[in-house]
Amino acid sequence: MTTLDGTDAVAFAQSVLDSQPFSVLVGARVEEMSPSGVVVRVPFRQEITQHHGFAHGGVQAALADIALTFMGAAALGPSVLTSEFKINFVRPGMGEALVARGSVLSAGRRQAVTRCDIFAVQGDEERLVATALGTIVTADVPPAGGGPG
Amino acid sequence: MTTLDGTDAVAFAQSVLDSQPFSVLVGARVEEMSPSGVVVRVPFRQEITQHHGFAHGGVQAALADIALTFMGAAALGPSVLTSEFKINFVRPGMGEALVARGSVLSAGRRQAVTRCDIFAVQGDEERLVATALGTIVTADVPPAGGGPG
Amino acid sequence: MTTLDGTDAVAFAQSVLDSQPFSVLVGARVEEMSPSGVVVRVPFRQEITQHHGFAHGGVQAALADIALTFMGAAALGPSVLTSEFKINFVRPGMGEALVARGSVLSAGRRQAVTRCDIFAVQGDEERLVATALGTIVTADVPPAGGGPG
Amino acid sequence: MTTLDGTDAVAFAQSVLDSQPFSVLVGARVEEMSPSGVVVRVPFRQEITQHHGFAHGGVQAALADIALTFMGAAALGPSVLTSEFKINFVRPGMGEALVARGSVLSAGRRQAVTRCDIFAVQGDEERLVATALGTIVTADVPPAGGGPG
Repeated sequence: MTTLDGTDAVAFAQSVLDSQPFSVLVGARVEEMSPSGVVVRVPFRQEITQHHGFAHGGVQAALADIALTFMGAAALGPSVLTSEFKINFVRPGMGEALVARGSVLSAGRRQAVTRCDIFAVQGDEERLVATALGTIVTADVPPAGGGPG
Repeated sequence: MTTLDGTDAVAFAQSVLDSQPFSVLVGARVEEMSPSGVVVRVPFRQEITQHHGFAHGGVQAALADIALTFMGAAALGPSVLTSEFKINFVRPGMGEALVARGSVLSAGRRQAVTRCDIFAVQGDEERLVATALGTIVTADVPPAGGGPG
Repeated sequence: MTTLDGTDAVAFAQSVLDSQPFSVLVGARVEEMSPSGVVVRVPFRQEITQHHGFAHGGVQAALADIALTFMGAAALGPSVLTSEFKINFVRPGMGEALVARGSVLSAGRRQAVTRCDIFAVQGDEERLVATALGTIVTADVPPAGGGPG
Repeated sequence: MTTLDGTDAVAFAQSVLDSQPFSVLVGARVEEMSPSGVVVRVPFRQEITQHHGFAHGGVQAALADIALTFMGAAALGPSVLTSEFKINFVRPGMGEALVARGSVLSAGRRQAVTRCDIFAVQGDEERLVATALGTIVTADVPPAGGGPG
């Protein structure tokens, strides 16, 4: 049985992303996945920018959606949906990658509240570019976003 | 002078999207643009889906970011940034296109609050799939998302 | 049987508020209540102000919580809880009353997305002071705010 | 000169709350105030409850508004306004007090993004009941909530 912990969890989560054409389009890669946190990386490339050369707010929002939902899956099981989230942009995103670090704030039986911070990475330096807070629900609840399961 | 009204406004807004590689990647098209509303369309194609064949939450969030920011530009001028937004997903997105309809709730000198509803379109039918509410600021305010200007 | 429509619905909703000591402290009154909308009024008085004499952001947030939750109850039934909401403040609140006008954007079996606009009222004039967007869930879902039921 | 650090900062912040009739009505007390964090407490009493005896969502939202705005003031100076915030309710609030712990995620010249977690306290135990994320702006920006300055 696949548990959401360790290498298997990373491989399982990556296989979910690989089955989502939009996540492939964005270029999202799972780096860590456990009940205590998820790390999702989007390598910087010209396709994710806006017209000033920074990462587009939309790609940051998409990355937040992925990280928040994966943390919800870590808490609730693989079959979840994103109910809603909020994102604050705090600094232009540039560098070699965007990295989202997600965590679970609270989890019940049917609902989890998750948080993620998005950093622009350049070498050893990370700078916060956005932060998000969201609600993930089990998938038998009808309202539905683009969840991982 | 380009004013954000009528055909010129649509062409101007589309030229901004065309200069944003990520908006091109998403496939966003401006259909209407005036101080009273913006309509942005993303044709449905496999690349924007998640693994169940619905539009990924991330593409809906990216579309919301675009529509909210364009309405902010309609209110404040072209040089704006997205400070933050919230999105609620209410139904799986499927059909021939996603269409975001944005409007301005309030605008001051430096900040506008904008709203958009996202619909899944199939023939003559439109169904609400998500709704978003955000804050757009003029671009000389340092914190910064992926604004249009 | 009490249905959430017409005079009985207003009286029922007011009786819920009257049983909530904090809603009594705030001074909230239900003026309209039907599946298509709720109107909740807080008469302006010194106790709800901040130090510049405007309505405190906290009282606006409390009023939003009440209006959003009541619309959720109109859609889902009386036993509901507020999962989350977002509020944008757009103008200082002053006048003779704050009035929140709520509506339902989407409702499923277990979850509703509701919206409200808060106006400052003076005589015949109403000016938007805040707007909110939230998620209401049926009460058997464990996570819980200060819902009406 | 009053700096927002240490005992003077607590006393200054409490004096701001004392000048806000609504904060007095809610019963908010500043326990800590420094650039690295603010702690605001609302003793539990019947007046802040809803009809099941839990803390009303509205009082939690009001407490979030206060804590988020005070952290904004710690980052930007005393003359600030709350632009917007989002709150997620995760558990019914009961015990001897609600305590909000706020921090600054990011601060520029005119805008700060702040976060707070709200706990229900009973003896030595603290349980998370809500979490909030917001944007605070300097007060010369026209749009305006119920800021501390």
